[in-house]
Amino acid sequence: MPQGQPATVPDDGLTTRQRRRQPLLAVHTGPGKGKSTAAFGLALRAWNQGWPIGVFQFVKSAKWRVGEERALRVLGDSGEGGPVTWHKMGEGWSWVQRDMESSEEAAREGWEQVKRDLAAETYRLYVLDEFTYPMHWGWVDTDEVVRTLAERPGSQHVVITGRNAPAPLLEAAELVTEMTKVKHPMDLGRKGQAGIEW
Amino acid sequence: MPQGQPATVPDDGLTTRQRRRQPLLAVHTGPGKGKSTAAFGLALRAWNQGWPIGVFQFVKSAKWRVGEERALRVLGDSGEGGPVTWHKMGEGWSWVQRDMESSEEAAREGWEQVKRDLAAETYRLYVLDEFTYPMHWGWVDTDEVVRTLAERPGSQHVVITGRNAPAPLLEAAELVTEMTKVKHPMDLGRKGQAGIEW
Repeated sequence: MPQGQPATVPDDGLTTRQRRRQPLLAVHTGPGKGKSTAAFGLALRAWNQGWPIGVFQFVKSAKWRVGEERALRVLGDSGEGGPVTWHKMGEGWSWVQRDMESSEEAAREGWEQVKRDLAAETYRLYVLDEFTYPMHWGWVDTDEVVRTLAERPGSQHVVITGRNAPAPLLEAAELVTEMTKVKHPMDLGRKGQAGIEW
Repeated sequence: MPQGQPATVPDDGLTTRQRRRQPLLAVHTGPGKGKSTAAFGLALRAWNQGWPIGVFQFVKSAKWRVGEERALRVLGDSGEGGPVTWHKMGEGWSWVQRDMESSEEAAREGWEQVKRDLAAETYRLYVLDEFTYPMHWGWVDTDEVVRTLAERPGSQHVVITGRNAPAPLLEAAELVTEMTKVKHPMDLGRKGQAGIEW
């Protein structure tokens, strides 16, 4: 609930207002569906607040998230709410002018840009979609991610999605939700369909 | 993955294409965050397909989901994607011309409208937000909901969110995701904040 009472009040010398405004690191993980969709749902709230939003899509296929991307682009360009910038690894990041040799290199390039944007306070909400995988595979150093996020300036919220979130990331996050698959249409022999899966 | 292979292929006489297009009943439940945000994220995909979307917000407070509502209204009115109709119990349903005596009556009125819309095939995606509660509390008969959904005509997808989803509903659903709370900012003594919680 928006106005719920916290279970404990920490002895951190902050007022409730200050504590409330602390930037959030959220992780959506687990084998179930809804990790990314919930992150994009969160982006709707950030947009409504007028916050600049940066999406970094750490997935190979440029076809994924077509619905979410189009919706957030229309919202960002609507003149209401906040602006939206959408970066796709699958098409080669827009700021990279050369061909990248591997997905590993592409993932590292993405993280370098996130670091630059965090330092410059470019966005108020970062959606790092499927960013757990480059960490899980060792392409991006988890400890560096955790340290960079801990030291990020200002009030920049970060949501990271994907399975296999590394333990130090979960430790560092204030909000961790695990999506558990209870039942899935593919178990019933159905393939994914437009409008539902993408 | 959109193009993943199902584990089994049922002997139901349907082609893959027919099976793929079967209408989906999805339930997002569990104590964690992201149940509703994932449903609204799903609505972005439906909007991108041009599908008419009906949101029924079965919550008392009209203040909730303000970000999601504004975003989906802007999208629905953008001239791109599908149209969006947003119904709120918290302000009294728009089609009800009198004061309702109780939340129970209001919830029943909401369900009656959903039934009418399903019969008329008004929408292609229904988001029944927090609709598990009226069922859990016995205000709306779960068996009737399950029966009505089983008999709904055409290709109408339904997503139901909320904790305490009744067992027969989970049984009837093709997609069930449980959101588990691993860690929450309130545990750290933080209250909710704009742009994140609403």
